Amino acid sequence: MMKITANDPALTSWVEIPKGSDFPIQNLPFGIFKSGEIMAAATAIGDYVVDLSFLHRVGFFDGLNLPPGIFAKKDLNDFLSLGRAKAREVRLRLSELLRTDNNELKDHVRAREKALLSINTVEMLMPVHIPNYTDFYSSEEHASNVGSMFRDPKNALLPNWKHLPVGYHGRASSIVVSGTPIHRPKGQIKPADAELPTFCPTQKLDFELEVAFVTCAETALGSHITTKEAEENIFGVVLFNDWSARDIQQWEYVPLGPFLGKNFGSTISPWIVTLDALEPFRVKGPEQFPHVLPYLSFEGSKNFDISLEVLIQPQAGQATIVSRTNFKYMYWNMAQQLAHHTVNGCNIQVGDLYASGTISGPSPGSYGSMLELSWNGQRPLHLADGSERKFLLDHDTVIIRGHCEKDGVRIGFGECKGNILAAR
Amino acid sequence: MMKITANDPALTSWVEIPKGSDFPIQNLPFGIFKSGEIMAAATAIGDYVVDLSFLHRVGFFDGLNLPPGIFAKKDLNDFLSLGRAKAREVRLRLSELLRTDNNELKDHVRAREKALLSINTVEMLMPVHIPNYTDFYSSEEHASNVGSMFRDPKNALLPNWKHLPVGYHGRASSIVVSGTPIHRPKGQIKPADAELPTFCPTQKLDFELEVAFVTCAETALGSHITTKEAEENIFGVVLFNDWSARDIQQWEYVPLGPFLGKNFGSTISPWIVTLDALEPFRVKGPEQFPHVLPYLSFEGSKNFDISLEVLIQPQAGQATIVSRTNFKYMYWNMAQQLAHHTVNGCNIQVGDLYASGTISGPSPGSYGSMLELSWNGQRPLHLADGSERKFLLDHDTVIIRGHCEKDGVRIGFGECKGNILAAR
Repeated sequence: MMKITANDPALTSWVEIPKGSDFPIQNLPFGIFKSGEIMAAATAIGDYVVDLSFLHRVGFFDGLNLPPGIFAKKDLNDFLSLGRAKAREVRLRLSELLRTDNNELKDHVRAREKALLSINTVEMLMPVHIPNYTDFYSSEEHASNVGSMFRDPKNALLPNWKHLPVGYHGRASSIVVSGTPIHRPKGQIKPADAELPTFCPTQKLDFELEVAFVTCAETALGSHITTKEAEENIFGVVLFNDWSARDIQQWEYVPLGPFLGKNFGSTISPWIVTLDALEPFRVKGPEQFPHVLPYLSFEGSKNFDISLEVLIQPQAGQATIVSRTNFKYMYWNMAQQLAHHTVNGCNIQVGDLYASGTISGPSPGSYGSMLELSWNGQRPLHLADGSERKFLLDHDTVIIRGHCEKDGVRIGFGECKGNILAAR
Repeated sequence: MMKITANDPALTSWVEIPKGSDFPIQNLPFGIFKSGEIMAAATAIGDYVVDLSFLHRVGFFDGLNLPPGIFAKKDLNDFLSLGRAKAREVRLRLSELLRTDNNELKDHVRAREKALLSINTVEMLMPVHIPNYTDFYSSEEHASNVGSMFRDPKNALLPNWKHLPVGYHGRASSIVVSGTPIHRPKGQIKPADAELPTFCPTQKLDFELEVAFVTCAETALGSHITTKEAEENIFGVVLFNDWSARDIQQWEYVPLGPFLGKNFGSTISPWIVTLDALEPFRVKGPEQFPHVLPYLSFEGSKNFDISLEVLIQPQAGQATIVSRTNFKYMYWNMAQQLAHHTVNGCNIQVGDLYASGTISGPSPGSYGSMLELSWNGQRPLHLADGSERKFLLDHDTVIIRGHCEKDGVRIGFGECKGNILAAR
């Protein structure tokens, strides 16, 4: 099978891969870069981006039957719409071209210099246009922490939680790529002891550590994607920061859910790591009990072992790791999320983003939000520069990183990073 | 002012306007039609659609400085992105061309025959591509009815309701144009007396009578639209049916809001009636007390007097009007909704749809959903064919209509119609 070939741990590339790089030859993620007047699809290898539009134009993808200009676009949507099978062919061809024992590109000096650009000299853009964005709530630890804090520690999970992957629709327009600054939002806040709400900048600005998947199919309204079919509709995953204003959210969210407490901005990492590249890192998820309804049942290992960490870097200060967790803890997996989302006939589109919800692990150091890490401000975190944080301060930068590691191969996601600007 | 000229009640057209038509010369809404191989923007007058792409191509808009092919598109988004001022010029020019005393098009037989197509021979398509969809909850009567039914009749409104226009994000992908059938959704339902949820077709399929506005501007993340600026960002409004599965919604919606109970389909009417055409129908809304925060305060009349009705037509049966209400009852107006939505820096895009939430009036016959009309099934409605309805049955067609009337001028919206198919 193609994907096994491209994932072979023994593969090496003629491109130098620095130790600890997120982008070995076994990864080959997809993104959109900009360099001067060039804006095109790319993969990443070591410290380079590879211009796929150029490779296509000069014939390196001949025989793959790709539409002309498919990589010379401002997003990957048209490429994604070709489906996972076509993306597999492209990834396999890239793997071949970049392999140590292949000379086609390596020895074609002019093409090589045109195709490979230093990753530090290019700007990474949004990889996809996102027609629809859904946020799930699929970490049992996160849902339990929030339920304990705001409702009842003895009944932390609501009755529906173990029967369906709870989710809600988010705002697609305000999803931005890593590196885009976020203004501290203003909004209505009503402290518990106040009679009336006031209007001010949020005092409880938070991150949420999430992983999100991107779909590569368009389905018809009224149709359903089963758990078995789901993954073939998922192109890959990105890191995701669902910035949240806890005080705004707390006042507004009944009865219809989060709104202005969330939609001022969300950040994604620029590289879509394919499900194919993640194949070796499958693991079983938590046992699900009570048993799920048949439409949510599935076979095989549908969780992925992705180590995740969150760092807070104060202005001009040193970054501190504030959370270490893993995507494998998720109670509900991506196949179940997509099967649930469509079981009522809801249609999906190419480029849709489906986020996991905050990923918290079992121990306090593995919680995926400041809300949980500081227990709603009761236990401030200590940063390396000696300062404390209950929630985020202006000019803090939040950095999310993630990687898988096995058999000496490390597949990483690059950074999902955002800096907080003062309220306007 | 241009808009007053185009709205003059004394205006007549050389196109025959049947009595009770929704489309007199004072309306001139915008939509997208398909006829054979032609797909283009149009306005409606009497029983005709007018092909704007044709008029543009042959020079009838010369001098307006419109981009070439602006009306030869599959949606109105590019036209909307030109802004309300440009749309005003086009509407005024159309008013001029269609006026009784103007011969330019009337006497140009070949052009007239090409431009005017019988409205019954064309298919109306989605007028816009919708990048983002938000649903508000802005009728006090609706929110009170729901609160009385499911919480506490003495405290029917939640504490935040009179301080901010409660809203949530909906699913854009499943919004369809009038006439598109909707499959009865399946999903998880947990009756109050059951221990576990079951999976089955919804037993409580409902409509929600709403009006939705479409935006014509793209703003930057972090910026805010004030109540004063809001209407210049609103192109016009459509009728909207936010189909709902009450039993699915009831089980899933805590704590993050409605999801599969809503996203299996929503229906819009095909013609966007401009805010300019609605100008003569402005009225004051309900008094707002407690006083709103300064960012929600506004000047002038921001509600619109639009009579609305809902009909249910059983398969092969006669349609029965089940609700008569009015858009003027809304507690929160569109300017407040848009100001609230963006006060945290959330950006808007061209073609975004913002729905009012169910529009209920003060009396039982004016409620905007079956949930309220049948009081959650306790008081079945009697239809003209002798049948009863607690909720919708398979093969029922729901038709929403709306119009304004003043000084002998009637501005209508056409129909927002959908037929229920059996669950798949």
